[in-house]
Amino acid sequence: MAKNHYETDLDRNPANYQPLTPITFLERSARIFPDRTAIIHGNARTSYGEFYARARKLASALAQKGIGKGDTVSVMLSNTPPMLEAHYGVPMTGAVLHSMNTRLDASVIAFQLDHAETDILITDREFSATVKEALSLAKVKPLVIDYDDLEFPQDGEMLGTQEYEAFISGGDENFAWERPSDEWNAISLNYTSGTTGNPKGVVYHHRGAALMCYSNTIAAAMDRFPVYLWTLPMFHCNGWCYPWSLSMVAGVHVCLRWVRAKPIYEAIADHKVTHLCGAPIVMSVLLQAGNDEKRDFSHRIAFAHAAAPPPQAVLVKTEQAGFDLTHLYGLTETYGPAALNEWKGEWDELDAPERMDKKMRQGVGAPALEDMTVMDPDSMDVVTKDGETMGEVMFRGNILMKGYLKNREATEGAFAGGWFHSGDLGVLHDDDYIQIKDRSKDIIISGGENISSIEVEDALYKHPDVTAAAVVAKPDEKWGETPCAFVETGAGAEVSEADLIAWCRKELANFKCPKNIVFAELPKTSTGKIQKFKLREMAKEV
Amino acid sequence: MAKNHYETDLDRNPANYQPLTPITFLERSARIFPDRTAIIHGNARTSYGEFYARARKLASALAQKGIGKGDTVSVMLSNTPPMLEAHYGVPMTGAVLHSMNTRLDASVIAFQLDHAETDILITDREFSATVKEALSLAKVKPLVIDYDDLEFPQDGEMLGTQEYEAFISGGDENFAWERPSDEWNAISLNYTSGTTGNPKGVVYHHRGAALMCYSNTIAAAMDRFPVYLWTLPMFHCNGWCYPWSLSMVAGVHVCLRWVRAKPIYEAIADHKVTHLCGAPIVMSVLLQAGNDEKRDFSHRIAFAHAAAPPPQAVLVKTEQAGFDLTHLYGLTETYGPAALNEWKGEWDELDAPERMDKKMRQGVGAPALEDMTVMDPDSMDVVTKDGETMGEVMFRGNILMKGYLKNREATEGAFAGGWFHSGDLGVLHDDDYIQIKDRSKDIIISGGENISSIEVEDALYKHPDVTAAAVVAKPDEKWGETPCAFVETGAGAEVSEADLIAWCRKELANFKCPKNIVFAELPKTSTGKIQKFKLREMAKEV
Repeated sequence: MAKNHYETDLDRNPANYQPLTPITFLERSARIFPDRTAIIHGNARTSYGEFYARARKLASALAQKGIGKGDTVSVMLSNTPPMLEAHYGVPMTGAVLHSMNTRLDASVIAFQLDHAETDILITDREFSATVKEALSLAKVKPLVIDYDDLEFPQDGEMLGTQEYEAFISGGDENFAWERPSDEWNAISLNYTSGTTGNPKGVVYHHRGAALMCYSNTIAAAMDRFPVYLWTLPMFHCNGWCYPWSLSMVAGVHVCLRWVRAKPIYEAIADHKVTHLCGAPIVMSVLLQAGNDEKRDFSHRIAFAHAAAPPPQAVLVKTEQAGFDLTHLYGLTETYGPAALNEWKGEWDELDAPERMDKKMRQGVGAPALEDMTVMDPDSMDVVTKDGETMGEVMFRGNILMKGYLKNREATEGAFAGGWFHSGDLGVLHDDDYIQIKDRSKDIIISGGENISSIEVEDALYKHPDVTAAAVVAKPDEKWGETPCAFVETGAGAEVSEADLIAWCRKELANFKCPKNIVFAELPKTSTGKIQKFKLREMAKEV
Repeated sequence: MAKNHYETDLDRNPANYQPLTPITFLERSARIFPDRTAIIHGNARTSYGEFYARARKLASALAQKGIGKGDTVSVMLSNTPPMLEAHYGVPMTGAVLHSMNTRLDASVIAFQLDHAETDILITDREFSATVKEALSLAKVKPLVIDYDDLEFPQDGEMLGTQEYEAFISGGDENFAWERPSDEWNAISLNYTSGTTGNPKGVVYHHRGAALMCYSNTIAAAMDRFPVYLWTLPMFHCNGWCYPWSLSMVAGVHVCLRWVRAKPIYEAIADHKVTHLCGAPIVMSVLLQAGNDEKRDFSHRIAFAHAAAPPPQAVLVKTEQAGFDLTHLYGLTETYGPAALNEWKGEWDELDAPERMDKKMRQGVGAPALEDMTVMDPDSMDVVTKDGETMGEVMFRGNILMKGYLKNREATEGAFAGGWFHSGDLGVLHDDDYIQIKDRSKDIIISGGENISSIEVEDALYKHPDVTAAAVVAKPDEKWGETPCAFVETGAGAEVSEADLIAWCRKELANFKCPKNIVFAELPKTSTGKIQKFKLREMAKEV
């Protein structure tokens, strides 16, 4: 080919190329809508102008402490204003925001602080006891800033030398932050929950975070000025990037320190919440609320839920309670929900059970995801689109992590063959929608046959007395593994192990039926995920 | 600083980095919504599955002719399905789409074909006479494909060896197109209208086009499945990138071969159009329609208009006719509307004249634009935010062109100092909204004072007998320049030159009042822009 005129004297320059970053979106909303409310927290209100000014003060105060590119600012914060401010103030300095699950125990916190090489830690008084212990265990000695929430006073010990408000008061609200030198620079660090072994540190880049803001806004079809209730923890995949996404449309963040029924219903009724996100546990909280906790409201609320879908009955009841459900799917490595169940208008005409079958599917890639499919992880061939052939869900595109921090081997494994290996097992339906059948490590292999633990759980959930169920592999001399079910039943239920096994035999092929049923309370993580690794240990003893 | 762990073993790879391109959005909609209507053209319907398949066939057929990276495919097409298909099929090959204004004369077409080094030309029979002449003038000898529109048969001569439908029938609907090797690669070429001198070829990149799709969708708050009527020519800044943007939300393209009242009202009533874009000329077409052309409709339509705002009375009447107006602003160099008048809820409470004052402003940067402001072009200082101090509107960000094709000097001038110099003169209001006062070349300098031609035109438009007005500089020995007004009046009006000058003296400072008023039909471009360069020539003779 001769010289390409389209690549001659047409280079990038500061006028036509700027690194993508979500920080820009807050700057824009503060400029256009300075007086509009950005944050509601208890009786406190923060406008977009103030939000941006406070984020800049935080950045300035951090920079005064020497924080800049390559440094780590860790936070142990609930869904409160400093957590939102940290999402902008920390990356404004070039540093990386490391958010921790507030229910972690001290040893895991200490591991994360050491691994992340934390320079500064901002911590809420509510968590002082655990954090104090973690700091005594950790090798790093970060500067500690305490957040003393005046709206919801906590009595935990002050661990550092300065309170958050005093700290940022030393910052300049006109701090001249700079865009990242490269949109590939790290913006945040989130450790996977690590059901086995040490947690892995997932590193996000500015480019992905910015694209996720566009994608979230369009996926949720958010018009200007949504009112977003923080039922999802912001420490979880950076709150699926909503702390940044809301700035795109000048939305209101309604903070929520604890996911409890009464403040949720109050926020819905008082602030006219339009959107919320969360795991199915939030549905349970909503549905199981007492009459003294509930409030009437007449508008409908968009509820985006991820993690394994709850039983159909819960979906139906949640819709009847005023929530329009959208099923999302993703992992920490995909900035949260990189997929969604794009709803086809014609599905509204289906009967409830068929409609709910469609709702259970995880769906298709989000607008900013380039590709998602299900493959045989050995051959890397796409599986047959029959809704039955299982394979591993694979992602490829711009809303994937940079990789795992200081863990080249895990990063290379996750990205082998040019695709991100999710570790989730699923099928492709004939319309190209995916449905997750299991985590690869949760699959049960019995006599050489794959058994989806989710499929067995679904059968159990259909029994009227079962309120929760989890199925794991139990080592078996003859079969290799057999399914072992752990079950919670409703108050007063008198169902027996034999009853439930018989029930499963009507619902499932024989080889898929649990050989053992254990009635016990299921161990859960702070985000409501059932901890199957604990159940696997228990199953060995059954 | 020590080694930055966030930049070690965390590189880009095909799983976490893909070049941005709008082609992906069509692939995604075709995959998710294959049966949904993508294009309505007369009685023809094209589904998303077919749209994508036809674009791939076009790409395949082009590739068979040797078209690839660095090549140019030129099109002389109305708002018809091949024009939409070309927006995807051409860049799928790596080539650049060059769209021409269908009202250009033969010499300009010939200039563009030669400058763009056109390899293939797709041309509608409607324009055969002009294109034939252009081809005889041009040095390049492209392969010519004729589009024979069966829905709206034209009798122009067939100029090439193949008709469009036959051409793509030789293509493979499973053509394995590749994403651009770099998101900075050129995707399209649009020549500026070139009121003086030779037109400049504005080169767009894949990155900007993709980001513009996000930005358009969010700016217009488009939910899934909008119905978009093509009142804006697709040859104009690639239809403000809407041929690509609609794929983001699986919208319906309602084609429109001619901007005439009857088919517009028919489309609105029959297809329930939700969105349309265009210059104020479209408002005139709507408002001046005869009763036999109008159709009743009960829904409201989002109308995004750019170019100089029309008189307030036209805005009010258009709103009353069922259209919700949003004022956009941009240039060919900014992919069309890189700015919009973000509407603040509280402005709805204003009285009509004050509300329309707000509507007249060009506003703020679009979601994907990093920065826009008004500067003194010499000092590059931002002007005082007083709504009065004029400066040049400057842009900076990712929705700016690569530059001008084969015109390094113009490119460097346009991007001098790290900002794109728009050539538009405007002011900054105290709320950071910009308002255009004039093109820099349209400003009148009289006795050393700047006079905004738009301000004088606004004064004239307020006179009840004036239906159109344009003011230009007339050379003057004493003052250097004086304002000379060209005016159209309504049927039966008997207003005199002296009447209008007296009217202006009540509205404006004396030195701003026109010294001459000429009653004449105003020369306009095909997109409805008044051709001031012609008026300047006429003014010399007054």
